[in-house]
Formats: sequence, structure tokens, C-alpha cells
Amino acid sequence: MKDIGHQLHDLIRRLYPICRSITGAGLRETLHIIREQIPIELREVPSGTQALDWIVPREWNIRDAWIKNSAGDRLVDFRKLNLHVVNYSVPIKARMQLAELKEHLFTLPEHPEWVPYRTSYYKESWGFCLSEQELQRLRANEDYEVCIDSSLKDGYLTYGELLLPGDSTEEVLVSCHVCHPSLADDNLSGIAVAVELARILGQTARRYSYRFLFVPGTIGAITWLARNEQVIPRIRHGLVLTCLGDQSPITYKRSRRGNAEIDRAFAHVLRHSGQRSDVIDFFPYGYDERQYCSPGFNLPVGCVMRARHGGFPEYHTSADNLDFVRPEALAESLSTILAVIDVLEQNRTYLNRKPKGEPQLGRYDLIKSAGNEKERRMDELALLWVLNLSDGEHSLLEIADHANLPFATVKDAALSLLAVNLLTPR
Amino acid sequence: MKDIGHQLHDLIRRLYPICRSITGAGLRETLHIIREQIPIELREVPSGTQALDWIVPREWNIRDAWIKNSAGDRLVDFRKLNLHVVNYSVPIKARMQLAELKEHLFTLPEHPEWVPYRTSYYKESWGFCLSEQELQRLRANEDYEVCIDSSLKDGYLTYGELLLPGDSTEEVLVSCHVCHPSLADDNLSGIAVAVELARILGQTARRYSYRFLFVPGTIGAITWLARNEQVIPRIRHGLVLTCLGDQSPITYKRSRRGNAEIDRAFAHVLRHSGQRSDVIDFFPYGYDERQYCSPGFNLPVGCVMRARHGGFPEYHTSADNLDFVRPEALAESLSTILAVIDVLEQNRTYLNRKPKGEPQLGRYDLIKSAGNEKERRMDELALLWVLNLSDGEHSLLEIADHANLPFATVKDAALSLLAVNLLTPR
Amino acid sequence: MKDIGHQLHDLIRRLYPICRSITGAGLRETLHIIREQIPIELREVPSGTQALDWIVPREWNIRDAWIKNSAGDRLVDFRKLNLHVVNYSVPIKARMQLAELKEHLFTLPEHPEWVPYRTSYYKESWGFCLSEQELQRLRANEDYEVCIDSSLKDGYLTYGELLLPGDSTEEVLVSCHVCHPSLADDNLSGIAVAVELARILGQTARRYSYRFLFVPGTIGAITWLARNEQVIPRIRHGLVLTCLGDQSPITYKRSRRGNAEIDRAFAHVLRHSGQRSDVIDFFPYGYDERQYCSPGFNLPVGCVMRARHGGFPEYHTSADNLDFVRPEALAESLSTILAVIDVLEQNRTYLNRKPKGEPQLGRYDLIKSAGNEKERRMDELALLWVLNLSDGEHSLLEIADHANLPFATVKDAALSLLAVNLLTPR
Repeated sequence: MKDIGHQLHDLIRRLYPICRSITGAGLRETLHIIREQIPIELREVPSGTQALDWIVPREWNIRDAWIKNSAGDRLVDFRKLNLHVVNYSVPIKARMQLAELKEHLFTLPEHPEWVPYRTSYYKESWGFCLSEQELQRLRANEDYEVCIDSSLKDGYLTYGELLLPGDSTEEVLVSCHVCHPSLADDNLSGIAVAVELARILGQTARRYSYRFLFVPGTIGAITWLARNEQVIPRIRHGLVLTCLGDQSPITYKRSRRGNAEIDRAFAHVLRHSGQRSDVIDFFPYGYDERQYCSPGFNLPVGCVMRARHGGFPEYHTSADNLDFVRPEALAESLSTILAVIDVLEQNRTYLNRKPKGEPQLGRYDLIKSAGNEKERRMDELALLWVLNLSDGEHSLLEIADHANLPFATVKDAALSLLAVNLLTPR
Repeated sequence: MKDIGHQLHDLIRRLYPICRSITGAGLRETLHIIREQIPIELREVPSGTQALDWIVPREWNIRDAWIKNSAGDRLVDFRKLNLHVVNYSVPIKARMQLAELKEHLFTLPEHPEWVPYRTSYYKESWGFCLSEQELQRLRANEDYEVCIDSSLKDGYLTYGELLLPGDSTEEVLVSCHVCHPSLADDNLSGIAVAVELARILGQTARRYSYRFLFVPGTIGAITWLARNEQVIPRIRHGLVLTCLGDQSPITYKRSRRGNAEIDRAFAHVLRHSGQRSDVIDFFPYGYDERQYCSPGFNLPVGCVMRARHGGFPEYHTSADNLDFVRPEALAESLSTILAVIDVLEQNRTYLNRKPKGEPQLGRYDLIKSAGNEKERRMDELALLWVLNLSDGEHSLLEIADHANLPFATVKDAALSLLAVNLLTPR
Repeated sequence: MKDIGHQLHDLIRRLYPICRSITGAGLRETLHIIREQIPIELREVPSGTQALDWIVPREWNIRDAWIKNSAGDRLVDFRKLNLHVVNYSVPIKARMQLAELKEHLFTLPEHPEWVPYRTSYYKESWGFCLSEQELQRLRANEDYEVCIDSSLKDGYLTYGELLLPGDSTEEVLVSCHVCHPSLADDNLSGIAVAVELARILGQTARRYSYRFLFVPGTIGAITWLARNEQVIPRIRHGLVLTCLGDQSPITYKRSRRGNAEIDRAFAHVLRHSGQRSDVIDFFPYGYDERQYCSPGFNLPVGCVMRARHGGFPEYHTSADNLDFVRPEALAESLSTILAVIDVLEQNRTYLNRKPKGEPQLGRYDLIKSAGNEKERRMDELALLWVLNLSDGEHSLLEIADHANLPFATVKDAALSLLAVNLLTPR
């Protein structure tokens, strides 16, 4: 069996060629492939539906697009790379010279071999993206045939949703966007990790219920929020997943609250990971945390990523390709998120039942660590810290942070003390 | 027309020769010259009046003073430099030898060419200040004629006051001391900047009312406070102006509250000024902020200065002269204070009217910046920050500080959003 | 008369040879010697008494112990060094070969000349501690005679207690452990400093009542806490004394509260001491602060030490001997603690009776410092700070910390202002 990193990379490779957008067949095909892996439900929301301050747009579909020279050669070809068409371009079929065409062409002069990714969701227009090198080859007095065989019609916005019920109806929200076409890190890595996360959590006992959203960016999150006001009060923690396959260190962006349990849990796990990582404050741009953390919702939803939104050269270009994402990075992202979820699942606040003086620990049959001297010492410290801070004001995560011990050590100490009746749930 | 820095310097030059004190003709003459520029009212408070814990002293006036040698030469001459007489010296006319005279002579041995500035307001005495060089020239067995032609009689303490009414009766207090004789930075620079500030604010629409005080140090502020208890609850912000013409970077000394809006506004403006500057905590010595920030009033009044109270060699010496203050420094001080006042005038707290999710900004006719790409990006960020933090808990200044954006950018974003009805005043 | 450091060292030297434990004759003898110096009362608590979660153990006594070779030479001899016997060893008399004996021998291979200190209070066993060098001299096929002439029988746990009543029934607790045998720093230095502290405080007027505890570690503190629940609410401040004679800088370990007055007072004194020192946060291991700061009591009790619990090579070894503790270090520890107690005794919160504006200080007969210019300036600043911050919200210690002035300067200023009726107790 392949290791988990390669499994994740395989799913990314399968999804990569599809021309996704915020609506349409490519989006639906993507969700169908996800549904082969985990039992998401597909939601279809008609064009024109009001969602908070937004209106669901018409559905966009595309079959083909090209720029041909007078010899009929496809110089720019949608079938080779779907980034070549400005996403949501209206249909066009025309002949024109370079001067006129140029207003519809987009390149990246600072990276002459790369093709940019562009969209025009909410303003009708059309255009092609190509490399600066390709642009340079076009000639001024040539007659070009331009075709975008697309359609923009009333239809539906589609998104996928999966609820894994837990012991509690309190929910953990996991959200990723599914609207970017052939971009591997910014979109597909988040999808792949979310799918695997859902599969793993689906097979384990869960304290919390987990809700996975596979939504078109912005409009998808907005639409879900508009349709689920009754769910929102149950959301205790949340994560937006994006850009999890590149080789940058993991960055966690805090929720707008700044000190939510998810914020402290993620910071804790990263601090004890032994890897370079970063924790940054919330800001109101980036991915769908913008919506979940808008002031009217203010949900405890953070964002986990490696390379940062807009902060790497390959961002929104053809260079964000299958080589840019690595199995090891995907696997590490997944395991980090699982470690954070483990903290959320296990974190509780207990009361020391013998708070006056220390209990005579030698009299209790406390589970002894099988570890070495240093580990046994850490286990003993953890027992003392848990007893000392279990005054009803400190959760295990807060105790771990205060004592600068790994959460697992503190949690194990608490379970030992619970077993001998020295602790009680608050 | 002269630039503003030179205008300010001209006023300083005109006021420089006058022998000011905490009472008397020089003080009155100074206030009359100010009244030529802005419509201050002069208040006269009789000697003996109780003001809080203080008593208004007798009025001091001086016509002439000298030390003559036996040949009748004026070796120390009040008419050449009014600092030569200890301010508030009682009258004396006597002959004495150097040994006796020396007890009444004050010099600065570490700066042998400079004459110190000394006062004896609340203890009857007399004395002369002279340079160490001048002192060295006096001879032990010479007979000196000493004369101070002063008077100390019941009269009045005088101060100037100007109220510029605004839309609100809430007030901004601007206070400077007017009691130092020929000292250019420590006194006259503050006066000149305050006069110009009053002129400019007098010509513009004002949210707040502005109250300018031109008061003798300590006793003047104490007297005003004693007579205006009913005004005090209306004071929302305040500044003491002093030492604004030298070439040190601007220092803002916080109010006793430490986090008043004036404190945050001044720190914000300095942080974004691109100039070296400093913000320091309140301490209970310095200028009249001591009185405004005494615990029974605890007003939100900070102090703006360049060189600091007692912290520069020229402090309270003849070297604090017309060369020590520079037009450019005066102009920069003025413009900084105006920028701070602009923040106070414009700072408000708004509510996002569509707090759930982001509004679909593309559907609104938002004023577009005419600036470059970077400026447009900053304007867009400002829109998002204002929407995200306009939950009724954050003023525009707090949003600007949180987002690390200039106040003006945030304020413009708020006005744009207000115009399209996405914001409402709290 | 000897200086105080040597007096303290003399007491340590006298106590050093005694074989102390958590019960028994050596402990009693130690307390009797302390009682020669200060009028402590001895408490005897029967074996088997329940104390919080603990049970007072049987009383341990020992007369002699040795390991003899077949020639009858005492190779390991309790009479030469009482650390040679594992404290609380049960009696044994047997002959055995090295292989069997080795399971009962403890050395410190990393310090081959030192003998470790070991205990087995709550688990019946026996053993010898010896140097690695001594161990190396034992031979495999030699027949050794082993004897521990000890007894473990129902008896008593003994501790000493002294209450020095003060003006208030509010108490300062001073606690040290008295259960370690021949260890000079870890035990005897704390005892010696506590004895001298009690003698000095016994001769002075006291605002607070002072309670000195000389208790066996852990079980002694637990027993006292169990028997004195009615006293506990009166404890305002407390200190555990330990390891005060070595040459490390002084370290203060904060109480669990972290910002108790004792914590701020100790940090203040150390900050102004001109010596290297350290202040560290509470953690739930170390000395009896563990018990006083358990969550059910959470007393404001810190711990003062030089070398830190478990943090120096000599810790719990024969190298913690009479050479390891120095008269100068003992004297400095004592004077530092006295300075902290002076802060506690003098710290109060006053109200400025003329809080509006500054009082006209020149009109009051304020005590003038006899010091130099810099000291007089500091005294004047202290007057201004005390007036400005005596709003009922700031104690003198808080004012001193805020103004970065020594407590004594601030306290003297307050007393001056109190004398002229400008302050009043809150």
C-alpha cells in the first residue's frame, strides 16, 4: 500500500486537469470524484438565489477555446492548459489583429515561461492568459482567429457537504475551496487533505461532530452560511485548509477572536512539533476564513497553510503545478492537523478532588510510563502540574502551555489521575 | 508670503526681548501681542486669590537692574539681557564687595559663556545671573553698586483664553506657558505654534470646541483649573505645547491615563510620520500636564515637545535663544499637531450594516483611489478591515492601529462605505 | 562579637553532624538546639494520624550502621557520615556477597568521591550510600557483614512552631524544612537564617504577626496545614527558606498567584539590590511551597533560595557540606529577606488629600533630605509621584515600581506628606 503522502498526491493528480470554476461541470465532476472517496452530499443552489449580500451567479461552462493564426495553428489552446482562458469568460468567436486582441491577453512578464490564472466572475468579459514568451511570438500584422466556446446561463452553484456526527452536536468545521482549475497547491492540496481527514475521522470515535465543506471560494462559503444559520451556533472550532502541499513551513493564521481554543491548540502543536512553523494574526483577506470570521459570525475558524495567500511567486500561475506539491509535505500537513484535532477532542477541564496539599501519590496505583528516566520525570511533572492547576480555571491545554509540556503528556497524566479518582470532570 | 516656519519664527523674535514673569507688565504685553493675532480674552485674577492649594502672588514688575563697578560701568545689565535678574527679585539698591555680592550671583561653570535663568517666585530674595566669564572678571576688593529697580505689590495674575466653539461642546484643551523671559524654545516656540494652530482651526469647521490657554506656568494652570471646574468634564482631549522649535525629534509624553484617545492618536501619527520620534510615559514633573493630570482631574492631556524638560544643555540658559529655534522644526511641529487633531476630528466608531459575510463590494459604487497599484491595494485592504472591525467595539483609529494602516486611508475607506450605506454611525 | 554571617555558619556547624529525618531523635535534637535560640514550641503528632491525604508514618531511629569486610574493618561507617545509610532504612543484620549487596548500594559515578543522599520514607527497604571509589574497592568474592541498627515504630512526628504576635493578627509565614541529615545548604542554611530572622523580628515592633515553622519536608507542612485550617485565612504573605548559604545569586520563586504582594516586594528588593538575582515563576515541585500553594490553599507563599532545587551538582550529596556554605552568602540572604519584610511592613495605600492640582509644596514644612543633589532630586520626585498616584488604587510598592524608585525613598516621601496632612490612609 502506498504511503499517505503519495495517496494524497495521486488524488491531486487525478483532479488536476479538470477545469473547475465557481459553478459548472468541472466543479460537479470534482465533487463526484470526492464522493467516490467520502460520502459527501452535493447541494445545488439555483442561479439568482440571494445569499446574504450576494446573488448566486449564472452557471458557467466551457468546451473549448483557442487563438489560431492564419495558418490555423492553435497558438493558445485551452485543451492543453485550462488556465489559458480567463475563468468565466463569455463566449466569443472573432477574427482580429494583435492590437485589438492584446486588450484581452494577460501575461506575467517577470516570469516569462509561466501562465497566469485570472477570473472575471462578476463582470462579463473575456480573455486569454498566456506566457510572456508566447505573447512575444505573436505578430502585429497577422490576422488571428479567436474562439471561446463557453456558456453563461441560469443553472446552479454546487457544493459538497459531509457531516460526521459525534458524541456531541457541537461541531468542528473543515472547509476548503474547490473552484480553482489546474492549480495544485492552491486548491487541490487542501481538497486532498480534507478528504483524507474525513476518511480517518469517519473511522474513529468522535467527541465532536465534524462538518466538511467543499465549496467554491467566497460565494460557496457565503451560500453555505446563508443557508445554515441554525448550524452556526453549534460550531466550536473550525479550520480552512489551503496550500498544504508545498515545501514552506506550516503557517497557522489565527481566527479573528485571536485566542480561541483552536488558535491555542494549533499554536501548541506547532510549538512542540520540532519543525519550523509560524502563527500569524487574523487579517480580513485570504481564503474563506474571511467569511466565517466576518463580524456578524465571528466564528473560531483559523486557516492552515504552508505557502501563504499571494505570498509566493507560483501563486495563481501555471507554476503551481503537480511538481510544486510534494507527498511528504502533504503527509506532514495531514498529521499536524490530526494532532490539533486530537488536542480538541481530548481537551477538558478537570477538578482536583484533593486540592489541599498534594495527594500522597505513592499510595495510588498510578500508571507508570515505560519510558526512560527523562520521560518518567516529565510524566511526574505532568501529574504535579495537572493536580496544581486543576482548579476548574485551567483546561488541559492551558496546563500544558503553562507547564511547557506536550499536550499528550498532560492528557495522559490527567487520565491516570482520573482513573484513581484524584480528578473529576468539572 | 513667507512660509509658515518663518512666520512662526518672526513671532518668536518679536516676543523674545520682553521680560515675562508669572505676573506683571511683560506678561501682559506678551498677551496683547498674541491678541493681535487671535482673539484671546485676557483674564486678571487679583493677588491673594485662593486657587486650589495655591494663593495668587503679588504682581512683580521691573524697570531696570545692574551691577556697576566703582567707575560706574554697568558690568551686568538687565537692559542687555533680562535673564541677568533672578525673576521675581525684590528691589535692592546697595554697595557691597564681591564676597557679600557672591551669595546673590549665579553662573553655569560648565558653560562659561552662558547665563542661567533663575526664579524665586514664592520666596522673597534677589539675585543676578551672569556668565562664569563675567563672574571671573569681578575683583575681590572692588566696591560694587547693585541695583534692582523692581516692585512686588498687590496686583493681578494675567492669562489669555480663547474658546473656538465647535459642533460639539466637548472640548480639546491646548495649553502653553507664557511666563519665561528671553527663552526662545522653552516658552516662545509653544506660544507661536499655539497661536498659529488657533488661527488655522478658527478658519475651519470643527467637530470639537477648542480652548486655548496662554498661562503662566503652574500658578496659571492651577488658577484656570480652580475657576473652571464646570468646564473640566467637557474636556475630551488636551495637549500641552512646549519646546517645539529645536532640532530634536518630536517626543510625545502620554497623559496619566496612558491609553487615552489623544495618546493613541499622537502615537499613531508619529509612527506613520516617517520621522524619528518618541513616545514616553507620563511622569508627574515637566510642564502644566502635571496639573491637568493631577489625580483629582486626571484629564486626557499629553505633552508635545522636541527637546525635553531639563534634558538639554541649553535648557533654562541664555543659549535657548533665537538661533536655537528653527523655522523648519516649528513648521514640522505644527503640521504634526494638525495631523493629530485631524485624527481626533475624524475618529468615529461605525457599525457594519451587513456584518454577516463580506458584502459583495463589486456591486457598490465605491470611490476608487486615483493612486498607483500599491495605493489601490491599500485602499482595498482598508475597506476589508473597516468592514471586519466595525462591530461597535473599534474606532477608526483602533482599526488603523490594528491593521497597521495610516488613519487617513482607513478614514477614507469608512467614508466610502458610509456613502454606500454599508456603515452606520454607532 | 562575631559578624552575623559567622554566627549563622556556627549554628550550621553545630547542627551538621546530627542524623535528622522526618521523625525521630535527630529531628528532636535539632529542634531542641533551635529552642535554645528562639522560643519555638515543639509539636508531637502520633504515627498513624491522618493529615489531609497523608498518614503520619512510624517514627524512625538509628543508632549505628556499617558494612564490614571479613577482617571486621568498617568499610562503610554511619558514624563517620550519616548519609551512608538510606534514610528510613529498616533494620538489617546479615552476611552477603557483593552481588547481593549491590542491590542495596547507591553511588554517584559522575562524582566518584561524593556520597549521595537517599531516602525511603514511604516504602520499606534498606540501603547504603557510598562513593563510587568506595564501591570500586569492594571485592566480588568477599563475604560482607551488613548491619543497620535502626527501628521503625509507632511514635511521633515532631515539628517546631513560633508565633511572634504583631499589631495585626494577619500573619507572615516563614517555613523551612528540618529533615535532612548532614546537608549544609539544603536544610541547615534555611534553618539558620530563619532562626536569626525570628530573633531579629522578635526584638522589633511588628505590624504583622510572624509564624515560623521548622517542619520535616512535605509531611511536616502537610501536617501543619491539616491542623491549622483556622490560621490559614490570616496568612497574608509567606516565604519558604532553603539553600541560602551557597555562592549562587539569590533566586526568588513566585507564589502560585504570581502577582501577590510578596512576589512584587521580593522582585522590587532584588531589582534595586545592585546584585545579580533572578525571579522565576511558580512550578509545583521544589520545597514546601508545593503544599502552601496547592490549589485548595493557594497561599501567597514564595520561595527564596540561592542554588536551586535539583539544579546544582552538590544537590543531595556529601559535597553539600560545611565548606559549601559561606558566611557572606548567609548574611546577604538574611539582609535581603529583612529588606523584603521591611517592604511588607511599610507598604500601605494612601489618599492624596489635595488631589486637584499639585499642592504648593513650598508652603509645607517637608522634611528635607540631608543627601546630595541627586538624592534631593530623587526625594522631590518621590513626593510628586506619591501625590500623583495616591488615588487609592496604588500602594507605595506599586508607586515605587511605577516610578522606578527604591521603596524606601517612596515610603519616606509618603511619611513626610502624611506628617503635613497631605496624605491620609485609605
